[in-house]
Amino acid sequence: MLNLLNQHRTVRKYTDKTISSELLNQLLEAACRTSNTGNMQAYSIVVTTDETIKKELAPAHFNQPMITQAPVVLTFCADFNRVTQWCEQRQAEPGYDNFQSFISSAIDALLAAQTFCVAAESAGLGICYLGTTTYNAQEIINTLKLPKLVVPITTITVGYPDGNPEQTDRLPLKSVIHYETYSEFSSEVIDELYTEKENSDFYKQFIAENKKETLAQVFTDIRYTRKNNEFFSDKFLLALKEQGFLK
Amino acid sequence: MLNLLNQHRTVRKYTDKTISSELLNQLLEAACRTSNTGNMQAYSIVVTTDETIKKELAPAHFNQPMITQAPVVLTFCADFNRVTQWCEQRQAEPGYDNFQSFISSAIDALLAAQTFCVAAESAGLGICYLGTTTYNAQEIINTLKLPKLVVPITTITVGYPDGNPEQTDRLPLKSVIHYETYSEFSSEVIDELYTEKENSDFYKQFIAENKKETLAQVFTDIRYTRKNNEFFSDKFLLALKEQGFLK
Repeated sequence: MLNLLNQHRTVRKYTDKTISSELLNQLLEAACRTSNTGNMQAYSIVVTTDETIKKELAPAHFNQPMITQAPVVLTFCADFNRVTQWCEQRQAEPGYDNFQSFISSAIDALLAAQTFCVAAESAGLGICYLGTTTYNAQEIINTLKLPKLVVPITTITVGYPDGNPEQTDRLPLKSVIHYETYSEFSSEVIDELYTEKENSDFYKQFIAENKKETLAQVFTDIRYTRKNNEFFSDKFLLALKEQGFLK
Repeated sequence: MLNLLNQHRTVRKYTDKTISSELLNQLLEAACRTSNTGNMQAYSIVVTTDETIKKELAPAHFNQPMITQAPVVLTFCADFNRVTQWCEQRQAEPGYDNFQSFISSAIDALLAAQTFCVAAESAGLGICYLGTTTYNAQEIINTLKLPKLVVPITTITVGYPDGNPEQTDRLPLKSVIHYETYSEFSSEVIDELYTEKENSDFYKQFIAENKKETLAQVFTDIRYTRKNNEFFSDKFLLALKEQGFLK
């Protein structure tokens, strides 16, 4: 099992082989066994295989080719719609149109998503997460016809891998682990943590291709800029309001 | 593997056996292989084993006994602190003090958390998620000394299981799965989805113990009330502001 988890790599190219509905159901059943808040199961998973709908989704994901190329696209959503409807039919007054309910249902959706990915990889499938989901939530809401109190939080494309992509690097474990309480980093420690990454041929080429002086500048100036982060922050907050999770 | 995932149950009681640092490191390494946004690894995991600090954390988790009883408590955090410091040391201007950056780093922290749980269960450990983390984030921030741009998003207690708790029920798969686009539920379908749950002896007793008429009322009137949800929404939004993720 640890071996499987340690072999994880993102798969962006898939063969033509379809995923049987029996296998897909098994993977979804396993995902739904994941821990969730109060066992309310306040999340939903939209399974998209239809070519037309995949094409409609594609622009929201900046036309990354996985969306149309993968046999299955899964959109994981924070979802208090079903719970709210159930309450209303049971003489109970629901109070889930707020930010904390969004957060707890988003957490549940994400934990289920990751269980799905582990299950899928154990069955020989490859997955790719799309971070574009919270950038363009409103467009996805429109395409997938998500009602109030349903907000997409992540998207996974899944299929049989075409090729075996390289594993990406990770920082040394101590970059993310703190013992007992949080330890602030000295500038020397930061240098040490990033040395191997910054000195690798892969990233040296990556910096050159992006015409930047440092790897960090590729992130701040090109990939995750302040301007985009602020634009998509406002957009996602607006989507949360429109869907009823924020006043 | 599917068998392991399908056997998942929440473990709230642990034996005295400690988790070796070798095993814990292996599980954390596997967790850190999980997909993450742009491979920035914008999350952190605070590992707490010290009795004094666990006792300090306990009130934030409403003194649920797992916190002090479990050998290891893991607090998973959205964390743009390290990335920001790295950028500042590399002539790059970071722009991660916003909501979208919080969301992407929270997603990454949660996906890593779930991989940790799967890995831990495969090694014979038991885990429990604590949803109280986002209720009392500010208190956890204080106890764990989390700097700006670090916000706790979930907590896991982990240890060797003392006993084998019952598995909790799940709604039929079709309660959470939608094909192609979202299908709204008719009231008849809602009734059908919840019938088995509502008619089980376990929940009939649960309703009676809570002195309510319907299961939904236990959720709306006792467990997840509007008043609490709104109170903790404001409190978490304030913590996001204090930590620099929200204007």
